[in-house]
Amino acid sequence: MEELRITGGGRLGPIDSARTPRYAGAATFARLPRLDQVEHADVAVVGVPFDSGVSYRPGARFGGNAIREASRLLRPYNPALDVSPFERVQVADAGDMAVNPFNIGEAIETVQQNALDLTADGTRLVTLGGDHTIALPLLRAATERAGSPVAMLHFDAHLDTWDTYFGAEYTHGTPFRRAVEEGILDTEAISHVGTRGPLYGVRDLEDDRRFGFGIVTSSDVYRQGVDEIVDQLRTRIGSRPLYVSVDIDVLDPAHAPGTGTPEAGGITSRELLEILRGLRGMNLVGADVVEVAPAYDHAEMTGVAASHVTYDLVTLLADTLTTGTPGTTTSED
Amino acid sequence: MEELRITGGGRLGPIDSARTPRYAGAATFARLPRLDQVEHADVAVVGVPFDSGVSYRPGARFGGNAIREASRLLRPYNPALDVSPFERVQVADAGDMAVNPFNIGEAIETVQQNALDLTADGTRLVTLGGDHTIALPLLRAATERAGSPVAMLHFDAHLDTWDTYFGAEYTHGTPFRRAVEEGILDTEAISHVGTRGPLYGVRDLEDDRRFGFGIVTSSDVYRQGVDEIVDQLRTRIGSRPLYVSVDIDVLDPAHAPGTGTPEAGGITSRELLEILRGLRGMNLVGADVVEVAPAYDHAEMTGVAASHVTYDLVTLLADTLTTGTPGTTTSED
Amino acid sequence: MEELRITGGGRLGPIDSARTPRYAGAATFARLPRLDQVEHADVAVVGVPFDSGVSYRPGARFGGNAIREASRLLRPYNPALDVSPFERVQVADAGDMAVNPFNIGEAIETVQQNALDLTADGTRLVTLGGDHTIALPLLRAATERAGSPVAMLHFDAHLDTWDTYFGAEYTHGTPFRRAVEEGILDTEAISHVGTRGPLYGVRDLEDDRRFGFGIVTSSDVYRQGVDEIVDQLRTRIGSRPLYVSVDIDVLDPAHAPGTGTPEAGGITSRELLEILRGLRGMNLVGADVVEVAPAYDHAEMTGVAASHVTYDLVTLLADTLTTGTPGTTTSED
Amino acid sequence: MEELRITGGGRLGPIDSARTPRYAGAATFARLPRLDQVEHADVAVVGVPFDSGVSYRPGARFGGNAIREASRLLRPYNPALDVSPFERVQVADAGDMAVNPFNIGEAIETVQQNALDLTADGTRLVTLGGDHTIALPLLRAATERAGSPVAMLHFDAHLDTWDTYFGAEYTHGTPFRRAVEEGILDTEAISHVGTRGPLYGVRDLEDDRRFGFGIVTSSDVYRQGVDEIVDQLRTRIGSRPLYVSVDIDVLDPAHAPGTGTPEAGGITSRELLEILRGLRGMNLVGADVVEVAPAYDHAEMTGVAASHVTYDLVTLLADTLTTGTPGTTTSED
Amino acid sequence: MEELRITGGGRLGPIDSARTPRYAGAATFARLPRLDQVEHADVAVVGVPFDSGVSYRPGARFGGNAIREASRLLRPYNPALDVSPFERVQVADAGDMAVNPFNIGEAIETVQQNALDLTADGTRLVTLGGDHTIALPLLRAATERAGSPVAMLHFDAHLDTWDTYFGAEYTHGTPFRRAVEEGILDTEAISHVGTRGPLYGVRDLEDDRRFGFGIVTSSDVYRQGVDEIVDQLRTRIGSRPLYVSVDIDVLDPAHAPGTGTPEAGGITSRELLEILRGLRGMNLVGADVVEVAPAYDHAEMTGVAASHVTYDLVTLLADTLTTGTPGTTTSED
Amino acid sequence: MEELRITGGGRLGPIDSARTPRYAGAATFARLPRLDQVEHADVAVVGVPFDSGVSYRPGARFGGNAIREASRLLRPYNPALDVSPFERVQVADAGDMAVNPFNIGEAIETVQQNALDLTADGTRLVTLGGDHTIALPLLRAATERAGSPVAMLHFDAHLDTWDTYFGAEYTHGTPFRRAVEEGILDTEAISHVGTRGPLYGVRDLEDDRRFGFGIVTSSDVYRQGVDEIVDQLRTRIGSRPLYVSVDIDVLDPAHAPGTGTPEAGGITSRELLEILRGLRGMNLVGADVVEVAPAYDHAEMTGVAASHVTYDLVTLLADTLTTGTPGTTTSED
Repeated sequence: MEELRITGGGRLGPIDSARTPRYAGAATFARLPRLDQVEHADVAVVGVPFDSGVSYRPGARFGGNAIREASRLLRPYNPALDVSPFERVQVADAGDMAVNPFNIGEAIETVQQNALDLTADGTRLVTLGGDHTIALPLLRAATERAGSPVAMLHFDAHLDTWDTYFGAEYTHGTPFRRAVEEGILDTEAISHVGTRGPLYGVRDLEDDRRFGFGIVTSSDVYRQGVDEIVDQLRTRIGSRPLYVSVDIDVLDPAHAPGTGTPEAGGITSRELLEILRGLRGMNLVGADVVEVAPAYDHAEMTGVAASHVTYDLVTLLADTLTTGTPGTTTSED
Repeated sequence: MEELRITGGGRLGPIDSARTPRYAGAATFARLPRLDQVEHADVAVVGVPFDSGVSYRPGARFGGNAIREASRLLRPYNPALDVSPFERVQVADAGDMAVNPFNIGEAIETVQQNALDLTADGTRLVTLGGDHTIALPLLRAATERAGSPVAMLHFDAHLDTWDTYFGAEYTHGTPFRRAVEEGILDTEAISHVGTRGPLYGVRDLEDDRRFGFGIVTSSDVYRQGVDEIVDQLRTRIGSRPLYVSVDIDVLDPAHAPGTGTPEAGGITSRELLEILRGLRGMNLVGADVVEVAPAYDHAEMTGVAASHVTYDLVTLLADTLTTGTPGTTTSED
Repeated sequence: MEELRITGGGRLGPIDSARTPRYAGAATFARLPRLDQVEHADVAVVGVPFDSGVSYRPGARFGGNAIREASRLLRPYNPALDVSPFERVQVADAGDMAVNPFNIGEAIETVQQNALDLTADGTRLVTLGGDHTIALPLLRAATERAGSPVAMLHFDAHLDTWDTYFGAEYTHGTPFRRAVEEGILDTEAISHVGTRGPLYGVRDLEDDRRFGFGIVTSSDVYRQGVDEIVDQLRTRIGSRPLYVSVDIDVLDPAHAPGTGTPEAGGITSRELLEILRGLRGMNLVGADVVEVAPAYDHAEMTGVAASHVTYDLVTLLADTLTTGTPGTTTSED
Repeated sequence: MEELRITGGGRLGPIDSARTPRYAGAATFARLPRLDQVEHADVAVVGVPFDSGVSYRPGARFGGNAIREASRLLRPYNPALDVSPFERVQVADAGDMAVNPFNIGEAIETVQQNALDLTADGTRLVTLGGDHTIALPLLRAATERAGSPVAMLHFDAHLDTWDTYFGAEYTHGTPFRRAVEEGILDTEAISHVGTRGPLYGVRDLEDDRRFGFGIVTSSDVYRQGVDEIVDQLRTRIGSRPLYVSVDIDVLDPAHAPGTGTPEAGGITSRELLEILRGLRGMNLVGADVVEVAPAYDHAEMTGVAASHVTYDLVTLLADTLTTGTPGTTTSED
Repeated sequence: MEELRITGGGRLGPIDSARTPRYAGAATFARLPRLDQVEHADVAVVGVPFDSGVSYRPGARFGGNAIREASRLLRPYNPALDVSPFERVQVADAGDMAVNPFNIGEAIETVQQNALDLTADGTRLVTLGGDHTIALPLLRAATERAGSPVAMLHFDAHLDTWDTYFGAEYTHGTPFRRAVEEGILDTEAISHVGTRGPLYGVRDLEDDRRFGFGIVTSSDVYRQGVDEIVDQLRTRIGSRPLYVSVDIDVLDPAHAPGTGTPEAGGITSRELLEILRGLRGMNLVGADVVEVAPAYDHAEMTGVAASHVTYDLVTLLADTLTTGTPGTTTSED
Repeated sequence: MEELRITGGGRLGPIDSARTPRYAGAATFARLPRLDQVEHADVAVVGVPFDSGVSYRPGARFGGNAIREASRLLRPYNPALDVSPFERVQVADAGDMAVNPFNIGEAIETVQQNALDLTADGTRLVTLGGDHTIALPLLRAATERAGSPVAMLHFDAHLDTWDTYFGAEYTHGTPFRRAVEEGILDTEAISHVGTRGPLYGVRDLEDDRRFGFGIVTSSDVYRQGVDEIVDQLRTRIGSRPLYVSVDIDVLDPAHAPGTGTPEAGGITSRELLEILRGLRGMNLVGADVVEVAPAYDHAEMTGVAASHVTYDLVTLLADTLTTGTPGTTTSED
């Protein structure tokens, strides 16, 4: 019985909260229309309920819907970027991909195919995990759509460039090593942000560097501040097509307890949001927000943080699509 | 991307869990189709996110969606009653009513009007609260549709026949006094089940008895067992059109911590389900499940109990509608 | 700003919930007057925030105030016993004893002296623990006031008749062995109810039996039912002055997770309340409710159970004091 | 049985923690005397258990008592300000206002009248919410006592200058719009601090600016640091009579999960306390701390933060009242 | 630094709790010696941290260690069976099997091989899951050691005789269908106990019956009582070698919230323990306790229930091994 | 069944996580060998499960094992310090001291004697509390082993230099006053870091200063940044033998809710780790991490923070022991 609002831009916007309270109705992301309710989505938020690639605490299969539930409070104007994303472009919630929990290989193929299908008409995706395994097929699809390897910013406590674990090549600790091996990343412009915590050995760092990754540690964010970090990242990446992958464990456990492999000493949600907002004007082509494990969350604090991250990513995409960044298409007119 | 299944009865059933895992996709009740996805629903589950009538812990505004989330595990065959309810009749989720949280009077009117609208074509409702205030407008609608005052079974720790509280006539403690005053209950056939805990005075009991209510206490359920209780209730109610109102606090706090006014010494979820199943063949015309306050729940245990209660009520309605109980219409053929 | 109500019996009753909502105001037990607000209390509820005698999870020092918080919903009429206890006698909350957490011996002396002081004018106590260590000084005081060793019903998962632990004679596992040794229990009429779970050896049972204890296990309650259990207990105890000690871990962890040494297979809160109500007419002289550890509670479920137990004990005392049971004084007239 | 201590200043101080452990006894704020225990209070802490004005998660009705429980650890000397507030002035806990949960209009009147009554003899209030609706009647009373519109610092994630919601003019999202309309704020000197998160539209900001509000966002606090922020605020407000309203959701959910409308990217409790301490010497006339919803709190972390905020506000009032700030009365001598 | 106690039977018993408090030291099951500390174990408790076979909430990989943590309170004498199991036979904790989380097939092989290795010298196993997938390789090993198909009692809310799920034959919903197909169960003597909740269709029951399973529902346990249930089960099974598989979700969510697929209306922990104790004298050859998912537990209540179940199973094995039941070997002398 | 790995340095390292998943096996610190598995440990982690010295929330008796559980994710290379500590020196887990919970004096003696025994062959200890009472006997042992009073850095929200509490000289609020009185601290080089929150009076600060302590408040850390703080501390302490005592409540409750006496406005886990890493090259002789009370923790966030603190302290010790700092012995060659 909830009614969707027509936004200023003539697009189908979120459920009208002046008529249906925010706690009522179905929990699509930001209470946006479902994909089947719009003719075409410029940006789609889609879930991948899959966590069979985790090495420690499972539960991220429930992450996407937890982020959606926590996104009920999101309002349509983003003052930090002075953008009303749902007016600028048509944003919709594409629901969840139906992914096999018992077969990682098949799951990866499903995600890749679904991502290609969803983006066939130029839609850009923000994907809600699920564990980080899914970044690999999402990057494959992003690169295929971009026509060339993409730059990547990877927000995470961990490197996720390990090789194998129990003989498995495709897990939540390995997607970016695989991606480099597959040649789908532009290794001139890839960087981890927010890493910290112990590793297996110095070779982890050496391998990672060899693959081309830059590293901005959580300690760097503390010492240099977000503005300096943003400058470095922008310089490195330039106008390349950019994919952003956010593992919510980049946040300190104080901000994101609801995740599978927490590490102390992380960045704050304010720092993360400020860095993301600093990416404005870059050529963002897709993004994911992964590793929210709500069984370990409290009072939705992880979900709320992830929903704000997702909202800023959607805003950046809306802005990118409507302000003539090189290499982007404009859907505004 | 989740696909609905066509049930054995040729009706539109729940999302196919062999293709979309139960934790994936939108949380309609039991993963059933939305009302807008079916031509006509014989039974509809509808939410009323409203808790402005509570006297202690608020939060039941989040109850309906919590029950839906906890209903993901419900499968389509009910072995306790040997009925596949979603094959027998078309069941759908009607979403949430849009109810004003700041005006109890207006809220009651909205619920009443929505309930009448939803039942205009013979649909029977199982309503997910929200607080118990909403039972009054739901009973008004049920009586209007039934054409005469309805019998009622009221499962609750409390009587809910108080008069006023802070001058307010319409709160979650008063719906059944108002209903008796309005003449919308068949006072020959109304009963509380599961009551316990302290009252304001002996007059509470005297008033209640004067209104016509029978009382089956939680202690009675312990001493007499569910079969004897069921026999008494069936004898009292007979083939009258029957409305069932379940305040989840009828369960012991061990089974339902997620509620607003918990009382120790309650019945178990097994006892409640057994009693409900004992109502098979009675002329059920509508039902509600109220007072689930998920902020106080743990691991969805209250939500799971409420979802099973709702499922059994839906099954009873499906059975009633298809087995020729006097006074019911058959939708099977 | 909260106003106390004058009860039907002309006594000072709880805060008037028609004017001050139950969630408002200070959390005395059942929102009763403080002891300093009444001239004389027939029954006083007093707290002993002490848990230095525990052998496993500590935290019962917060138990008394947790029970008080959870008692806000208690209303003044007890329908299970058809008694309005706060009309029958003056009941008040005596606050907390100030007990040294670092010296068990001194703590025991403080509790004993405070209990004697509080009962000097005939007041009967229901004491909120705190851990079970405090039962010893409370029994000493009860026996001194009764003028002879008292009978005792001890509701607990455990026997609490161990000898020493780490050389300590006075812990929460030993009070009743000490009490027997001190001759303050009427060993013709003492019984454990609800025991279960592993022991150190068969000698635990032999010692216990030698001290005179009867044992009604949790299994017995299941197999025989509360009415038969009550009959046995009443026969055993007769009209002797009776002290009731309730360790909340007598309840199954499902009903009382908030305690220090939980054991599976316990009785339900309904069974416990039914047994207590079965004690009506016996010569109750004092009681305690101990071992509530709120850090392990959820949604106050343990607190609510304990508050209902306390309320029934207060009701029994009110009834005992006003119905001419042999050996009791009447304060009604 | 707990004894109050006579402080160095000859005033009645908190319960003596050398005799009664901090976890024992009644939970008045900081274990201070009740208002009925002192002849006159210079500063009173009072609760308003009311949350019928909320638009999302309810539960702030339990906030005041949660803050009091969490304030048991507060000691009498504030080293950050080098003030022993309970020596400087008489501080007392005035208990809770008895407010109707079913009638927002009546509730607002009750709060206003109670605030005027409590301040009739010059007492200054720190009010514990309850939801932010109550700031309006508190400001009315503060302005009436100050004799002119007051300056205001408003710490919050949100602006709270919306117009209506579901037709309701008086909710927790509208108090400051109403206050500006009523002319009870000195619009030369009003400012939000800590705002962040999405809005309905750019017009929200335009309206807010038009009303006269300055905005210090959470991002500003990060980039400029608390000292620069404090300088700006002091310059803007000067010696005007100042009311401080703290919505606990100004803190990041990591620091304050126990609230109704959490927004990621907030300030830390350290930043908030540092800013408040920076207000020393300003002409503080009253304050509130609102929107603590303990059902969503964990391990009292929100309660502890709110209790420290309250303690610093009490200290500032004690300091203001005893150091000859223009426009204040001195109670020291 | 913790010292193991030599038990009455001359065997190596648990850590001496008179010297090392129960909360101290490593969490082997019941604080028993590790397998590497004894020459030979008659009974070994072993963990299988594996949950890649689950269809809903994962997390049982943490189950075994959660049960061990919750087993710290277990004492060495079982009064319900009048047996001191650690005196009767040598019991030890064999630690955890190292199982691949990314390959179900390999995991099943590892479990089977490990179980065979551990039982090579006659040791009997009680295995702590992990999800129910592991019952299949454990049954294979049990049957191999028994020399013939084993009888089985399967305590569970579910049948676990489904066929495939997402194409996977080996999941936590299918072990017993596979076991019947493999001919490793004595289909004259297999039964589910405690089942309830919705199924996919009536065919689930028909298939199950065809495989030979008897069904004792949770409702049957309520209506018939444990003694009658035990009689039926004993009659059916007789002296056959018996494997007992306990899915903790057989308990009501009130007793076992910490599990992956909870169903309302379950049996109590008291009923489960009583039924298990009723198996005394039967020819128990092995057992498992699975599906404890501690992320959903509260205050270890699920862990405590599971640890008591495990303790009773160990006691039954100890009793079986020392009382000359047909087909058992005696290790007492 | 879990296998330990031989590290690069030829020492016995943690369980091989490539063969045994991190969630499997016993929870020694960082999955390191037990002390009985190595010939000699250069560094030992040992637990003291004791909390009878606390003044507010108890529960730190469970702290050591909670830290160990949360340490499962620690990997063997510390990139922040570029050290593989378990290669540099032999590190082992010495288990828990067996400490009497009912006798503080005896407990202190046991800790002192155990610490001396464990360090007899040059082993350096990192001790996991337990409450802060234990710092006194640990300092006694450290000073005896160092041959002279040790310098100390004390990370804490509180001073812990109070005198007595309820007449008790030895509690968690007094260890450092006692240590100064006993002459076991080098009062030229002792400092608190991270203090905040109210005190009893200005005299607390005066006493503390008189004892020789420097104070770096949480506010100082905010204003000066960690690098400046580190410089000050290094200058003050120089090459003196240094003991580091970390009360986890030095962290803000957002980072460490699981503790007994939380204070708002604390430092972040990132700040704490950065300061500790800044101590590299100093002459660290021992350390403790205390006051983790897991009953108040959520999703192990306090445990994870404490485990990282412990890991960095172990790394510093490994580095100190192998890089020729004056006064240290080298075990590398």
